[in-house]
Amino acid sequence: MPVVPAARYYVLVQPIRAVAWSPDGDAVRIIDQRCLPGEYVERDLRSLDDVRDAIATLAVRGAPAIGVAAALGLVASLGPFAHEDPRTLRARLQAHANLLVAARPTAVNLSWALNRMTARAEELPTATVPVLLAALRAEATAILEEDRAMCAAIGRHGLGFVPDGARVLTHCNAGALATAGIGTALAPVYTAHEAGRRVHVFANETRPLLQGALLTAWELARAGIPVTILTDGMAASLMRAGEIDVVLVGADRIAANGDAANKIGTYAVAVAAHHHGIPFYVCAPWSTIDRATPDGAAIVIEQRHADEVRHVAGTAVAPANADVRNPAFDVTPAELVTGVITDKGLYSAPYSFLFAHGG
Amino acid sequence: MPVVPAARYYVLVQPIRAVAWSPDGDAVRIIDQRCLPGEYVERDLRSLDDVRDAIATLAVRGAPAIGVAAALGLVASLGPFAHEDPRTLRARLQAHANLLVAARPTAVNLSWALNRMTARAEELPTATVPVLLAALRAEATAILEEDRAMCAAIGRHGLGFVPDGARVLTHCNAGALATAGIGTALAPVYTAHEAGRRVHVFANETRPLLQGALLTAWELARAGIPVTILTDGMAASLMRAGEIDVVLVGADRIAANGDAANKIGTYAVAVAAHHHGIPFYVCAPWSTIDRATPDGAAIVIEQRHADEVRHVAGTAVAPANADVRNPAFDVTPAELVTGVITDKGLYSAPYSFLFAHGG
Repeated sequence: MPVVPAARYYVLVQPIRAVAWSPDGDAVRIIDQRCLPGEYVERDLRSLDDVRDAIATLAVRGAPAIGVAAALGLVASLGPFAHEDPRTLRARLQAHANLLVAARPTAVNLSWALNRMTARAEELPTATVPVLLAALRAEATAILEEDRAMCAAIGRHGLGFVPDGARVLTHCNAGALATAGIGTALAPVYTAHEAGRRVHVFANETRPLLQGALLTAWELARAGIPVTILTDGMAASLMRAGEIDVVLVGADRIAANGDAANKIGTYAVAVAAHHHGIPFYVCAPWSTIDRATPDGAAIVIEQRHADEVRHVAGTAVAPANADVRNPAFDVTPAELVTGVITDKGLYSAPYSFLFAHGG
Repeated sequence: MPVVPAARYYVLVQPIRAVAWSPDGDAVRIIDQRCLPGEYVERDLRSLDDVRDAIATLAVRGAPAIGVAAALGLVASLGPFAHEDPRTLRARLQAHANLLVAARPTAVNLSWALNRMTARAEELPTATVPVLLAALRAEATAILEEDRAMCAAIGRHGLGFVPDGARVLTHCNAGALATAGIGTALAPVYTAHEAGRRVHVFANETRPLLQGALLTAWELARAGIPVTILTDGMAASLMRAGEIDVVLVGADRIAANGDAANKIGTYAVAVAAHHHGIPFYVCAPWSTIDRATPDGAAIVIEQRHADEVRHVAGTAVAPANADVRNPAFDVTPAELVTGVITDKGLYSAPYSFLFAHGG
């Protein structure tokens, strides 16, 4: 590492906001992730179709960000109908929510956020339309702010694992673009950077969809954090060369025993980290821990279309009918996970500890 | 594995020939690897420029194949000059060889093959032009046939590691397309297939240049051998699921202590195989073992252009100025190598054994 006073690197974090209210409050403003890294496009989603299309086409992606976008978008989509009678508006609310859930039916955060919105309406059965819309807006804003607070808390709890000079390996994108805040896996990185620490991130490109190269590299560079892209086969070599200090990854679901499902390729990183004695942390909101799932074997892995492997950005990179595998996720067993950095603090083995103490 | 009589799977291997004499004997016939897998194009290289361009632009690639193509191509390039006097022709021979070596200056097999050709000419200082050209043609044919015999020998020595029903993982392309014969890492696969054994190959796509998806998948499918493409992050998960029985990879150089340099990503595969107790064999000609290199730390790793990582098939997949790593190779330490399958037999730890016994 170059010997440079830490103070020289002090930069205030001005992170991007992947999802937020538009300035007029009538729309959801998103960064259109289909355009990155080539173009930076902010898009205001005002209608039901706008919101649904943005979610379905991955203009907005990342489990937390999708939930927030749906909640805000539901409120925005009802704005033009404030003149309707309460009964019609409530029916419309449910219809809009149903259509939004269908945009990505397997996204748990999407249905969670929309269920929370419709439940809020049910708590106010006699409210006038203005009161109901104000309550829904407040609920959506709460979902947004809670997500931002969750990210910030993960950043605080993970700060100790990102000392000055740390070289962090990450996989896929569990950053600001995947949440309304500063991300999950990247939250400790942003927090360390804000604290004036020098951090260098190595981002696995993450085939097949290349979220690391397209998104993680872009958002870190924009925040002024040094980032180097690796193809997925390189990380183990860098570990052997002593160039990686810590691994931080996200999780889509964590089983009760601590097994963690995350983007395909995460398990290979965990095995390599274990082999080299490098700490491997999963960073995820507490809500990612699914007590109903006893272990990783019970997690159903989504299998995606073969053409995601056969093509890159529309160009064929394999014989047209080649047989491929394309699991979206893999499972890292708890014994390879040094700890889980959540918004409620760090948890490490034995993971059953979590459940004896509630929360 | 499905229970199917092995006999049903018996298919005579009709492997492709990546480099050979053209039917008229006046040219080198190659499969143009720049066109695969989209198009199958055989190209006859008749002139010095033809041969040099084919090597420089990777129309022919793979260390053994390059050496063979250069030797045959040198002879072809001299054909139109058979009327010259002996002294002029000898000067031309040296000039052609010098230009061919410059096409890929770091390719060891290229200079080895061309040095062997010029040395043969020096053994016949008083020969007439027809005698000299006949001797050069015989020498080039010997280089070709020795390469084919080397591949076949690796196949025989590796056959025991590819039993009926074997599921083989490989990385990059060390197959027929990289040699004049049936390849190195894939030689045991072709040999097992020819023996009527059922073999299923999992081919890592091998970013950044995707030789696994573009070449390995193509040549195995053409030979009737079932092949499934994986992105590089997937193999560890398949190992955990018990879907891989053995790993076979090639090598660009093997140090005296058994450390093996091969395409970037090989080391990650070796670590994962070790973690799961899966045998990991390096398949390479005996000549790949470099006694002058004591261990892997002494192997200089070629660093290639950043755009190979930033682009896939001409499409940008990362911010334009993103920092990337792009080492062409990595080194797998001997302790992770179950054995080296060479044309002289299987060698395993302690690798110093090799040198006590000569060869």
